[in-house]
Amino acid sequence: MSEDLKQRILSRVKKDLAAIETALADNLDPYFDLVSDVARHILFSGGKRLRPLLMVLSARLCGYNGDGVEKFSTIFEYLHAATLLHDDLVDDGTMRRGKPVAHSVWDNSTAVLVGDFLLARSLSLASETGRPEVIKVIAGITENMSQGEIEQLHRKGDTDLTEADYMEVILRKTAVLFEGACRVSAILADVPEEKEQALSDYGRNIGLAFQMADDLLDYTLDSKALGKVVGADLREGKLTLPVIRALDRADDGDRARIVRTIQKKDLSTQEFKNVTAMLHEYGGIEHTRKIAAEHIDRAKQAIAIFDASQAKEILLDIADYALVRQL
Amino acid sequence: MSEDLKQRILSRVKKDLAAIETALADNLDPYFDLVSDVARHILFSGGKRLRPLLMVLSARLCGYNGDGVEKFSTIFEYLHAATLLHDDLVDDGTMRRGKPVAHSVWDNSTAVLVGDFLLARSLSLASETGRPEVIKVIAGITENMSQGEIEQLHRKGDTDLTEADYMEVILRKTAVLFEGACRVSAILADVPEEKEQALSDYGRNIGLAFQMADDLLDYTLDSKALGKVVGADLREGKLTLPVIRALDRADDGDRARIVRTIQKKDLSTQEFKNVTAMLHEYGGIEHTRKIAAEHIDRAKQAIAIFDASQAKEILLDIADYALVRQL
Repeated sequence: MSEDLKQRILSRVKKDLAAIETALADNLDPYFDLVSDVARHILFSGGKRLRPLLMVLSARLCGYNGDGVEKFSTIFEYLHAATLLHDDLVDDGTMRRGKPVAHSVWDNSTAVLVGDFLLARSLSLASETGRPEVIKVIAGITENMSQGEIEQLHRKGDTDLTEADYMEVILRKTAVLFEGACRVSAILADVPEEKEQALSDYGRNIGLAFQMADDLLDYTLDSKALGKVVGADLREGKLTLPVIRALDRADDGDRARIVRTIQKKDLSTQEFKNVTAMLHEYGGIEHTRKIAAEHIDRAKQAIAIFDASQAKEILLDIADYALVRQL
Repeated sequence: MSEDLKQRILSRVKKDLAAIETALADNLDPYFDLVSDVARHILFSGGKRLRPLLMVLSARLCGYNGDGVEKFSTIFEYLHAATLLHDDLVDDGTMRRGKPVAHSVWDNSTAVLVGDFLLARSLSLASETGRPEVIKVIAGITENMSQGEIEQLHRKGDTDLTEADYMEVILRKTAVLFEGACRVSAILADVPEEKEQALSDYGRNIGLAFQMADDLLDYTLDSKALGKVVGADLREGKLTLPVIRALDRADDGDRARIVRTIQKKDLSTQEFKNVTAMLHEYGGIEHTRKIAAEHIDRAKQAIAIFDASQAKEILLDIADYALVRQL
């Protein structure tokens, strides 16, 4: 079912995705080789372009006919790529989308500086809109993302993390970017406050569900499908909702077993399998799917105020897809 | 003489510096402990506040009476602090202003993410001006700074670096920030184009001279006065103007000696002294001082179009001080 949904979405956004690809490449063209090479490595390695796509579709939903929607949509992919470059460093990741991470192809310094460059590029593009509200949203996204990552980093291995803490972290590190992509379109289109709020709610809820789905993949996919080492979150001591819920529900013995595994430096395949089994047993996986599904419902309800259109249909499909996606 | 000049400047900007300190602290206050701690570590360790001070004085020169000049001036200190956090990582520095660098007190990841946060904070403040031109300047500064650092990083140890290459790097990594601090005041004050250009020229030339003076300190100060390991640039293979000029003027034997020293991993105190002696002998030190002095002259000429005022006098004093400063 998820494959059908994916194909239906893709067939309807083919032209938009092509325009986004062109805009992404055009905006990097004038920069010198190394910057472009590193930026291209992270940007053109099979990203879904979900964030710029949400921006383009939201603009269409709002009836925005201004120039440069695709150009402005790249703001959200550049921001995303910038944080990937820095986060891979922070997490000391080795693979991303089946390719070695930038800081291993080049070096840490280059990854830091090209991340800064992409961040700056997205802000330059934001300033080209000439709309201070847009820039405020973009700057706010950047503040939130760095704070979310810092919070996550410094609570690594903290088995007292609550569901509320987790929601706060994924709101900042992921959902504000989705929210911003949808909201900026509403601002550019000058729609009434009510519609701007509706699109913000749609984006934020999609973002939350998307991150929960992402966190589930670490426990439900194999390493080849995932394009990176499986169980990475657990190995790093990064507690996501499936684990938080299971810790909350497990009996004392199993709780102690999960905590010990989280605190270990190295994790065998068998130990990882044992934890995964407990996440299923104590409903961590199921609970995460349920909460994510609730956010998908909220996202869909939020845009109910818009008239029927193809853009709306696609946004509703994307909401469903955010949850069932396998990657 | 440089001490007298410094005291004269300080006595005249005492109130401004106090207001800048207050604004720097106030703007960090609402953020959670770790972010504030790391930000404070880099921000409150004896920085000169030269960039926000230039902004405040430029605003006064333009007769700007709007609210929040001190608040907006922090944009330039936050930007500066963000790049220091990332650059210390890139350069793998150990000390900054006599204190251990942030990435050794905390860790690399924290330094990267708090740098991102400060960058975002400066952009949020820029968006509060409500002026897209201001945001364009700030985003442009950030793009330039990251590009300048990348260029510098990837030409480490490259003994073919020319004086023009060096000027391009220091323009991007240092001078655009000084230029921006002065220019933003002119934009906020709505002065005619001619005056905006004059203040941009002033700031850019001060920035170029300031960086040249900084690069000279590596060869003219001892480690205690410098607050970090002396000869760091040479050890890292970072070629600055004194070296570039000496390489250009040295005879074949001495040129080969300098190149060999640059290419060595470890550098003894004696080897460093030998190179420093050659930088003097072949006029590298003298030439750098001369070029820096030319930029100081240009900076002072640029603001000749403004009427006499105390702000102008201080800006002229700062121009002189940028060159003679011992730290």
